[in-house]
Amino acid sequence: MEPAQAMIKTKLPKGFTSNSVNCGVRKYRPDLGIISSEVDMVVAGVFTKNEGRAAPVKYCQSILPSDRIRHIITNSGQANSATGNRGIEDNLELVQHTASTYGCLPEQVVISSTGVIGVPLEMKKLKRGINELHDRKSKSANSFALAIMTTDLIPKSVYKDIELSEGKVRLTGVCKGSGMIHPNMATMLGYVFTDITLTPESAQRYVRDIADKSFNMISVDGETSTNDSFFLAANGQSGLTLNDPEDERIFLEAFEEISIFMAKSIAADGEGATKLIEVQLKGHNDLERAREAARGITNSPLIKTAIHGEDPNWGRIYSRLGQFGVPEEMMNRLNLSIQGVPIVKSGQPIPLDYYKMKTRFTEDVIKIELDFCSGDIQTVAWGCDLSKKYIDINTEYN
Amino acid sequence: MEPAQAMIKTKLPKGFTSNSVNCGVRKYRPDLGIISSEVDMVVAGVFTKNEGRAAPVKYCQSILPSDRIRHIITNSGQANSATGNRGIEDNLELVQHTASTYGCLPEQVVISSTGVIGVPLEMKKLKRGINELHDRKSKSANSFALAIMTTDLIPKSVYKDIELSEGKVRLTGVCKGSGMIHPNMATMLGYVFTDITLTPESAQRYVRDIADKSFNMISVDGETSTNDSFFLAANGQSGLTLNDPEDERIFLEAFEEISIFMAKSIAADGEGATKLIEVQLKGHNDLERAREAARGITNSPLIKTAIHGEDPNWGRIYSRLGQFGVPEEMMNRLNLSIQGVPIVKSGQPIPLDYYKMKTRFTEDVIKIELDFCSGDIQTVAWGCDLSKKYIDINTEYN
Repeated sequence: MEPAQAMIKTKLPKGFTSNSVNCGVRKYRPDLGIISSEVDMVVAGVFTKNEGRAAPVKYCQSILPSDRIRHIITNSGQANSATGNRGIEDNLELVQHTASTYGCLPEQVVISSTGVIGVPLEMKKLKRGINELHDRKSKSANSFALAIMTTDLIPKSVYKDIELSEGKVRLTGVCKGSGMIHPNMATMLGYVFTDITLTPESAQRYVRDIADKSFNMISVDGETSTNDSFFLAANGQSGLTLNDPEDERIFLEAFEEISIFMAKSIAADGEGATKLIEVQLKGHNDLERAREAARGITNSPLIKTAIHGEDPNWGRIYSRLGQFGVPEEMMNRLNLSIQGVPIVKSGQPIPLDYYKMKTRFTEDVIKIELDFCSGDIQTVAWGCDLSKKYIDINTEYN
Repeated sequence: MEPAQAMIKTKLPKGFTSNSVNCGVRKYRPDLGIISSEVDMVVAGVFTKNEGRAAPVKYCQSILPSDRIRHIITNSGQANSATGNRGIEDNLELVQHTASTYGCLPEQVVISSTGVIGVPLEMKKLKRGINELHDRKSKSANSFALAIMTTDLIPKSVYKDIELSEGKVRLTGVCKGSGMIHPNMATMLGYVFTDITLTPESAQRYVRDIADKSFNMISVDGETSTNDSFFLAANGQSGLTLNDPEDERIFLEAFEEISIFMAKSIAADGEGATKLIEVQLKGHNDLERAREAARGITNSPLIKTAIHGEDPNWGRIYSRLGQFGVPEEMMNRLNLSIQGVPIVKSGQPIPLDYYKMKTRFTEDVIKIELDFCSGDIQTVAWGCDLSKKYIDINTEYN
């Protein structure tokens, strides 16, 4: 797996091309991108559970899963959310304009948007941008990754080649964070492109399962955006299928690995973040509540500020567990370790060398391990610390 | 109603005395306080729903409601939470020491604690402090209000005299915030003392009802403490009862007024707060979900930072409603006003003069009005903005 570095191209699978332009909504950087397939592709997606779904989300939900998609277009800077009926019309107009520019049907175009909520799309600029996009093509995902960024500091893309029984397949992932991130899904946009052959039904099942283990387990600020979307796109251009169960296992393992890698990269690049927080929870007896407990920690402002201050204030972790997902009898069995150092054993605090512990908090990744000794359920959640920079970004962003 | 000012004494009702000392847990300021009644009093309480309840909370829940309480003792600086079996024993020892010092039974002593979680109580200092407390008495609540503060900037106490059909009654409230505030209950400690006569059953009913409209509707940071407690203490020394329904109405109105006043004062004095946020919600059809929606706004980090930045970024309010408590069909009927200026009408955004709106955000209280035009349910929630000071306080506090 090759994480994106400034000088490393994130290669797309066979039959995919991509590009981006600055259409003028944002000042300089690319703000409109497209990924296209030479042939019809299967696309499935999972979307925000926010009841105020943005226009592009409603549109995607109405056409996906589908086995005849050609283009996925994405604009950044304006979310086309809380834009009322006009937003629905604008969204459709963009889809139609893309279809006529690229010579396909509107229902072959998938669209996603991210940015400020409550302002109408700047249609003239976007339409001009689509015309401009049409004349350029690239075989890497890098410029698309750049175009979908909002407050992200790092463009996020990754690819992995896997060996199946009858040949090679590639998976390429692209995503963006970095505020309003508490997916259920966050605006988190995520895309995985592959040249395997999938049916719409299997693509839909895969994308839902993997979302629950990756993007749905991260939190930057506990805010669920109106635009969260995670897509799996498969164009079959490798000529291979997943009919062999062992091939399916290998593919899903790679899909999960790439998705967790992207999810962690969003958490680590959360607005103002300086540290990645990883919560490894086991010994619970209920998956939903276990996830709630793990995510309760990653979205606790008091824990996030303590970690930012490199202060091993573990009492805040204890309190947060009691607020979310952990009944009292389990609290009494809790084993808690931070950075590998045992802090609580069977619900009882272990005397702690505060200053020794404090030095462990200077590390870039803070790992919190929880064992409730009450069942077989385990889960992992990721988040980031809360710094003054988050306040800066969000008092000024618009 | 007389809010506490530096130079105004917060008078206690008949038959109550109070005092506080610095016992040495904190550096200078009072950290141990007591309020006593000359005669047995009725005390009822509501407590945190955090599953990791602190030792004093477990103890109070085991003895309340009761009609024979004499003393309410409170220490600040150490929460006696996540302290395991030792915490339970320490708590009991403090109760017993108070009882023997004051010449009553242990079950006549109520106790609450607030401060750092996960450190054992400094018992020697506390016991010496209790001895010292015994030799002093005051008829005002001011020094008790000072003793229970943690990161509060302002001691919070208030009293109100009401005229019932057969005479006068006084209600005196004392409380503290100011982080880990998202009661269900927050460490939020609240006390209302009165000289009316109540039964344990009516006191319990009153305190639960009023908590739901006051302390349970504030949020500073979405954290539910392990120590939240709200007590109603009635010693009957006015010689009056609430047998007349009109008297009961007047009493409850005053109890609610005082409790909301205290709850708002906690929100306004939240850690790092510079503005009070008030969300007035109506037209919902479900009280639980309406409260969830209103509180979803007051604990949204993105809304709190926008308000801190005096930025009328209303799209964040829209998004948050869709995340918590408001189904899509209600989102489509939403009328939203901020500072009296209509922003959304029937789910559609109204063109906004951004710079004119921005000047309204410079005010100290930001009022958000929501009408879902879907029912008769209304509710109010209070919170505060999120500033860099919150980060400062919580990266350093311990």
